[in-house]
Amino acid sequence: MNPVVLGVDLGSRNTGFGVLQEEGERFRHLSSGRIRAGSRRPLEARLRQIYDALVGLIQDHQPQALALEEIFLAANVHSAFILGQVRGVVLLAAAQAGVPIFYYPALVVKKAVVGYGQATKAQVQLMVEQLLGVKTDCQHAADALAVGLCHFFHHRGPKI
Amino acid sequence: MNPVVLGVDLGSRNTGFGVLQEEGERFRHLSSGRIRAGSRRPLEARLRQIYDALVGLIQDHQPQALALEEIFLAANVHSAFILGQVRGVVLLAAAQAGVPIFYYPALVVKKAVVGYGQATKAQVQLMVEQLLGVKTDCQHAADALAVGLCHFFHHRGPKI
Repeated sequence: MNPVVLGVDLGSRNTGFGVLQEEGERFRHLSSGRIRAGSRRPLEARLRQIYDALVGLIQDHQPQALALEEIFLAANVHSAFILGQVRGVVLLAAAQAGVPIFYYPALVVKKAVVGYGQATKAQVQLMVEQLLGVKTDCQHAADALAVGLCHFFHHRGPKI
Repeated sequence: MNPVVLGVDLGSRNTGFGVLQEEGERFRHLSSGRIRAGSRRPLEARLRQIYDALVGLIQDHQPQALALEEIFLAANVHSAFILGQVRGVVLLAAAQAGVPIFYYPALVVKKAVVGYGQATKAQVQLMVEQLLGVKTDCQHAADALAVGLCHFFHHRGPKI
């Protein structure tokens, strides 16, 4: 079985996911999209939806790694608190399934995928689509696939 | 069955819990303590421990409500992010078990228990111990019992 990675792009409204499999020098796109938790329902209902979706993705694809972008904590303490809650249930789902978690700073992800740490989101999406030969349906899915690709670039060869 | 409330005092190292049951004009202390997640292990392992402990407490005591202190988000964005992750798994455990969640600002908790919004932590602990006729083994447990008591004071009578 070739290694599979699940990339996740955290968000309180939309959490992107991307599942990739390494195949020799190439990568196969298995699945991607976003968990649309919205913003109208109580936070606990949204957290449950995100958790359930993650549990389902892990069961379906049995990834050997979960890759996340290391969040840049800007000055906004309120969004850090909300995003932390989403991150909590994502980490829980991975830990319960025994899937190791890897973190990559945004700059490292961009450099890995586009070759340039200051690349725009549109450039990242374009490169992800070219590398995988698929159209991504949203920025969240593209960002999740990008961090998944970044993980593979950093774990080429026998170790994953 | 008299109503049972599970009070929780969130913390990344120590999460306090307190389980109370209303009995007429009094409150019965069923259980309290802290989940000592420490700070050395990976965050996901600590989140899992906190989640598992909460799931166990909910199963054992079947509370009709989970009461939390509404966190005051100070300037420290990093601690908000860490605390957010703990809060995420606590809310998830409650949501999965169908337990409604109630939030109370610290000032409201202190006012309910001590009668004075600017009360110190030591005063809160003392009043909790007097009201319940128990010795609490740590501040985290006392804070969790305090928010549980606050919930009962705000939901006296038929509604909980």
